[in-house]
Amino acid sequence: MPELRQDPATKQWVIIARERAKRPHEFMKPSAPEPLPLYKPECPFCPGNESMTPPETLAYRREGQANGPGWWIRAVPNKFPALVPEGNLSRREEEGLFRKMDGVGHHEVIVETPQHNQCIALMEDKQVEEILLAYRERYLTLREDPRFKLILLFKNHGLAAGTSLEHPHCQLVATPIVPLNIRYRFEKAASHFDDDGTCVYCDIVREGLRVRTRLIMETRRFAVFHPFASRAPFETWILPKEHQASFGSISMEDAKEFARVLKTTLFKLYKGLNNPDYNYIMHTAPIKDEHEDYYHWHLQILPRLVTPAGFELGTGMFINTALPEETAAFIRSLPT
Amino acid sequence: MPELRQDPATKQWVIIARERAKRPHEFMKPSAPEPLPLYKPECPFCPGNESMTPPETLAYRREGQANGPGWWIRAVPNKFPALVPEGNLSRREEEGLFRKMDGVGHHEVIVETPQHNQCIALMEDKQVEEILLAYRERYLTLREDPRFKLILLFKNHGLAAGTSLEHPHCQLVATPIVPLNIRYRFEKAASHFDDDGTCVYCDIVREGLRVRTRLIMETRRFAVFHPFASRAPFETWILPKEHQASFGSISMEDAKEFARVLKTTLFKLYKGLNNPDYNYIMHTAPIKDEHEDYYHWHLQILPRLVTPAGFELGTGMFINTALPEETAAFIRSLPT
Repeated sequence: MPELRQDPATKQWVIIARERAKRPHEFMKPSAPEPLPLYKPECPFCPGNESMTPPETLAYRREGQANGPGWWIRAVPNKFPALVPEGNLSRREEEGLFRKMDGVGHHEVIVETPQHNQCIALMEDKQVEEILLAYRERYLTLREDPRFKLILLFKNHGLAAGTSLEHPHCQLVATPIVPLNIRYRFEKAASHFDDDGTCVYCDIVREGLRVRTRLIMETRRFAVFHPFASRAPFETWILPKEHQASFGSISMEDAKEFARVLKTTLFKLYKGLNNPDYNYIMHTAPIKDEHEDYYHWHLQILPRLVTPAGFELGTGMFINTALPEETAAFIRSLPT
Repeated sequence: MPELRQDPATKQWVIIARERAKRPHEFMKPSAPEPLPLYKPECPFCPGNESMTPPETLAYRREGQANGPGWWIRAVPNKFPALVPEGNLSRREEEGLFRKMDGVGHHEVIVETPQHNQCIALMEDKQVEEILLAYRERYLTLREDPRFKLILLFKNHGLAAGTSLEHPHCQLVATPIVPLNIRYRFEKAASHFDDDGTCVYCDIVREGLRVRTRLIMETRRFAVFHPFASRAPFETWILPKEHQASFGSISMEDAKEFARVLKTTLFKLYKGLNNPDYNYIMHTAPIKDEHEDYYHWHLQILPRLVTPAGFELGTGMFINTALPEETAAFIRSLPT
């Protein structure tokens, strides 16, 4: 019999369709990943091609000039930005009923390595630490702009995850509004705090560590789970064990520990599913709410093993064909 | 400069990314659709293979026995149902924090033609009318079960839309809860009614018909638009012009007119984009709210021309690379 499970943080229900369920190993990509070249002449993120991007906003480099080679991490504005740091924040009415405003914000790319064919799962620990420090640095810089309400960091890995460039990178978008889904998420967390006086994400961490059936790994500061109301096979959450509303509050030391946890988590997905396509999304508090008692930043990794269809688009409810307890046991069994 | 536009019905913002925008014809599928056979021996929806499905819940047939050939439309329970009409509606707590319940509901498939290689865009008007009458009949039957709160009708056409069987069919899912996104949508419509005393969808129809820049077609009872805050290139809405909260209230005569409008709309998408993959979703009021003044059933067609990525998954906000005014003009220019 299928089962409905409720995410205690969002109150969203998901359907766990046992009748359709596959065993965890059946989600593995059938063929080996296509090998990529170390360098691709036409790739705007490969070293030597810096003039193909807008001027950099950050670079960690051992040598050379700005906007030339010699870097190991480099951030640049997106050449085709979804939002731009200019224009007017006021709403305008159109045709009486409809509202629009300028697409004010910021959209940038963090190029995570000079090597075209690298990925976080297989990188040296040191490089992943530097990536996390770059995420932190850019977050802290962008949050200073009073026009921005939320900074969303996300990665699209692979075609099924919507990427258009295979060179490893993540994206930062600063929005001039708090998106409605984030506000709903926030309100549900506030309502949990009203009732219980606790952060719902702290509760999720505590319960998950007590029961351990969906736990992937635990370090001094972080816990990794397949969530109870998992929306898709192998959905994975990384949360700080201590309460912290904003990713921007992470210390440099914790960012390095987070980097090692992220790398291990992605390495296990890489090995277990043969380099699956995935998105990850850094959920963090809106800038003005960075110190709330009831919100808690966390990274959600969503492997793109199935295509959301009409039911998901129509209801926002997901049908998951895998049991998180089973996928977690499978991932735990893999070597690190 | 990119633009933010707000859907007046959901209050959700979308980003219209002009910098990334393509011309409408650039969204066309490059290659001709692969021709399919009229009959496929292993297809459970082809005539003669009726024993491969659970027993039918509806069939329009000119001859023969139940669960044999001779039908032109046939509805059957989904063989791998997401929800089933048995089990317990009560919530259970697990591990203190987490809630689950049995997957009570109903999940069925309406096979829309005996011909494996047919599609609504190319069918005879009469067959599409019969499909709509079957949608209506199954909706009206399922709504009688007091355990069901919402009946969602949707179609997944093509691989990118998440279909697993190419034989033309749509799906009906009856859920034991009102999904959160539907409730949010409902609350926003109620709030609009509180303020203005009008149904927001009636207002959308009225404004759309006045301005006409995003109008695709208008008949006596229906209007077809590309919405102002279009979430994806060529998103299309079909709405009844008169207020009607539930699809279940449609008359048989109006269902036939709707069928001809749906067919023309899908035919134009087929011609303009070379048989694109798409989902359509019948948005209708929850069963207990079928006569509300502020909700209004409508069909949303979402071509799957781009892959939603981390930003969309993280925020629920869509980035659209096409202008609905431009795509509507392109579709209008096509012959019917």
